Amino acid sequence: MAQFHCRIRAELPAGMDPEVRADFLERDRLHLAGLRDTGALLHEWRAAGEQLEFLVLESAGHEGLHELLAERPLFPFLRVEVTALRPGF
Amino acid sequence: MAQFHCRIRAELPAGMDPEVRADFLERDRLHLAGLRDTGALLHEWRAAGEQLEFLVLESAGHEGLHELLAERPLFPFLRVEVTALRPGF
Amino acid sequence: MAQFHCRIRAELPAGMDPEVRADFLERDRLHLAGLRDTGALLHEWRAAGEQLEFLVLESAGHEGLHELLAERPLFPFLRVEVTALRPGF
Amino acid sequence: MAQFHCRIRAELPAGMDPEVRADFLERDRLHLAGLRDTGALLHEWRAAGEQLEFLVLESAGHEGLHELLAERPLFPFLRVEVTALRPGF
Amino acid sequence: MAQFHCRIRAELPAGMDPEVRADFLERDRLHLAGLRDTGALLHEWRAAGEQLEFLVLESAGHEGLHELLAERPLFPFLRVEVTALRPGF
Amino acid sequence: MAQFHCRIRAELPAGMDPEVRADFLERDRLHLAGLRDTGALLHEWRAAGEQLEFLVLESAGHEGLHELLAERPLFPFLRVEVTALRPGF
Amino acid sequence: MAQFHCRIRAELPAGMDPEVRADFLERDRLHLAGLRDTGALLHEWRAAGEQLEFLVLESAGHEGLHELLAERPLFPFLRVEVTALRPGF
Amino acid sequence: MAQFHCRIRAELPAGMDPEVRADFLERDRLHLAGLRDTGALLHEWRAAGEQLEFLVLESAGHEGLHELLAERPLFPFLRVEVTALRPGF
Amino acid sequence: MAQFHCRIRAELPAGMDPEVRADFLERDRLHLAGLRDTGALLHEWRAAGEQLEFLVLESAGHEGLHELLAERPLFPFLRVEVTALRPGF
Amino acid sequence: MAQFHCRIRAELPAGMDPEVRADFLERDRLHLAGLRDTGALLHEWRAAGEQLEFLVLESAGHEGLHELLAERPLFPFLRVEVTALRPGF
Repeated sequence: MAQFHCRIRAELPAGMDPEVRADFLERDRLHLAGLRDTGALLHEWRAAGEQLEFLVLESAGHEGLHELLAERPLFPFLRVEVTALRPGF
Repeated sequence: MAQFHCRIRAELPAGMDPEVRADFLERDRLHLAGLRDTGALLHEWRAAGEQLEFLVLESAGHEGLHELLAERPLFPFLRVEVTALRPGF
Repeated sequence: MAQFHCRIRAELPAGMDPEVRADFLERDRLHLAGLRDTGALLHEWRAAGEQLEFLVLESAGHEGLHELLAERPLFPFLRVEVTALRPGF
Repeated sequence: MAQFHCRIRAELPAGMDPEVRADFLERDRLHLAGLRDTGALLHEWRAAGEQLEFLVLESAGHEGLHELLAERPLFPFLRVEVTALRPGF
Repeated sequence: MAQFHCRIRAELPAGMDPEVRADFLERDRLHLAGLRDTGALLHEWRAAGEQLEFLVLESAGHEGLHELLAERPLFPFLRVEVTALRPGF
Repeated sequence: MAQFHCRIRAELPAGMDPEVRADFLERDRLHLAGLRDTGALLHEWRAAGEQLEFLVLESAGHEGLHELLAERPLFPFLRVEVTALRPGF
Repeated sequence: MAQFHCRIRAELPAGMDPEVRADFLERDRLHLAGLRDTGALLHEWRAAGEQLEFLVLESAGHEGLHELLAERPLFPFLRVEVTALRPGF
Repeated sequence: MAQFHCRIRAELPAGMDPEVRADFLERDRLHLAGLRDTGALLHEWRAAGEQLEFLVLESAGHEGLHELLAERPLFPFLRVEVTALRPGF
Repeated sequence: MAQFHCRIRAELPAGMDPEVRADFLERDRLHLAGLRDTGALLHEWRAAGEQLEFLVLESAGHEGLHELLAERPLFPFLRVEVTALRPGF
Repeated sequence: MAQFHCRIRAELPAGMDPEVRADFLERDRLHLAGLRDTGALLHEWRAAGEQLEFLVLESAGHEGLHELLAERPLFPFLRVEVTALRPGF
């Protein structure tokens, strides 16, 4: 298994309809909860005061990593920086 | 309690309806006044000539800091840089 | 307690004497091991192929965080980006 | 009187002789303390974990501001961003 | 009195209605002419080939400077960099 | 096995002794030739006119990738950007 | 024949109609498959987790390279960095 | 006469109506052809694979240079970097 | 005659011998005074708090401008951004 | 034959011995004159006021282009940006 550090900034259009925004955020929250359950999402931290989060994901390979991220409902609005990690603790 | 320096650039769409803009700015001004009253907002400076401001906020923890900023009416239009501060004077 | 995400790029001078370099790296490694033992260092990941690491540190306050980093033997050679974190998991 | 926000990153050469470094830092600390006493230095915050500080300085004019900064012993090693401030609180 | 150097890039939406654009530009031109008359605008240069201009403004203080710029009809479309100047000639 | 795209800019000090430089380059060339033989180095392209190269490396995991790069004689002089790749062709 | 390394980031508008998006992606996929068949597209890698790809293209000359890219259905949405390559392997 | 190097990136909105786009490009092409005929446009190169071009323009003065560029039909969509040139060959 | 706006950041090595530094600064000051006398230097402003200055220079042509700057004693330490100006006032 | 636009910034160490500097510049000047004679160097422009130049080079292929640049005496001090050009005029 390989681990990846993802620095993710969400850039939802400021003028987005509030209900559409809430729906996106809720579906995305559930998606991440699912990844926690499967063990794919090892860690999740959200920055204080910014629309910025750090995920540590684990997957068998790089194709798997892409699916974990591309299947997020918020994916079209995300700026993602992926760093391949050497085993940490 | 912890202190945070926030560098905040407001990026309201140039073509925004003037009344909608004025309403956002007024609600946000009142929100900040409220933070002054509760003691959460220690200092506020606005740059001359630019849509740029510096806030020094105090909160019990990082979650609290996020709420102080995320609850601002202008939050969707703000680019925020947060710096955790060592006690100054 | 507060948690912090630190993105750290080590920039040791390329022409540094190999023995001096090795000594710095070893003393720094021991320092980090110590932080693990005290519980201050929650997580440490190193990027593959780059002189880049991610630490998640926990300290009672911001002053404590500064000491955790400033006392690292490598501190003069480090470019550090600190992000205050909302509780994650 | 005018107020200025200064974002200041100190970049002392990593290989600087420790005693020379300590002497610079101490003389600079005393200089800033002097500015506090004269009322020129209204606020000083240091970032946690980075060689970064924020000062709010007050001076009769721009020439005065320059002297306040240029007379700092550390001035040759400082990267300074000055922002002219509208009165805050 | 204090002097300020302002580097200003105008970013009007490319698809803006030509008449609306012309009206904005004309009202802004008149506004600047007014500042020349009052002595607030000391110098104005426009770059060749780019939507870029340099103004040197003089005002009693920083609040005054902000008004000089914020009252420009084009203000919502302007990216402004303000530099506080030491007396030049 | 996983594949990685590495964008690598070599920044040898301009004033380096020519013989030392030639030795570094030759040892590094041999190291890369060895990686070709083991199958770890799938592709190597060098930009025309710049000290820039692109490598596609294959390794069992991220730790292996790090060793492939960190063991290069030129490693202390290299600015490396690693991108984890989904299988291409 | 000359070889070129292309770093390509696709920036489709987040609010694009899903069917229009799918059609663009499918037509572009077929276009690239065609380039593989003609031998113009030597290699294609897609980054894991980001809308980023690396192509190595071969063409008789620079005009040919431009056509290979400009004829992609996604071309208006692509940010392309082209690097002329010295023969690699 | 003075010579200028212009690095110009065209940023037409991706969703622009194809006929409107073609009309803009054709009118701009004719405009540049006109500048060739008058001798104002000394050289024109277009990058392979990117919406990037380099022009070398000659004009009696800076005001003239501005008109040469500002009168281009595509001017509202152009990001222009102008460099004043010392006589080359 | 043509006018040019020059944004100039002086980057003298921090460890430079104080006497050498003072000599450079004095010779450069005298050089600029000479340009004032010849009418080549129309305006000179120095930023407050930063090693940054703005010059407006006038010369018959671009070659002349280069000599005005390249002959400054500080030229090897200067980062210069030149903007060709349309006549201002 | 293929044409290339090269944007080249020379970064000679400010403290370089004047005679060494003059020798480098003279040998480099002669090298470029040689390229003019062979027809490889089609155009050369130097920016006014900055250590910046633009070359248009022609070579049979990318390997040839690299040699034209790498053989310049100043090559170790040059930051080069190469753009492959479609035929211009």
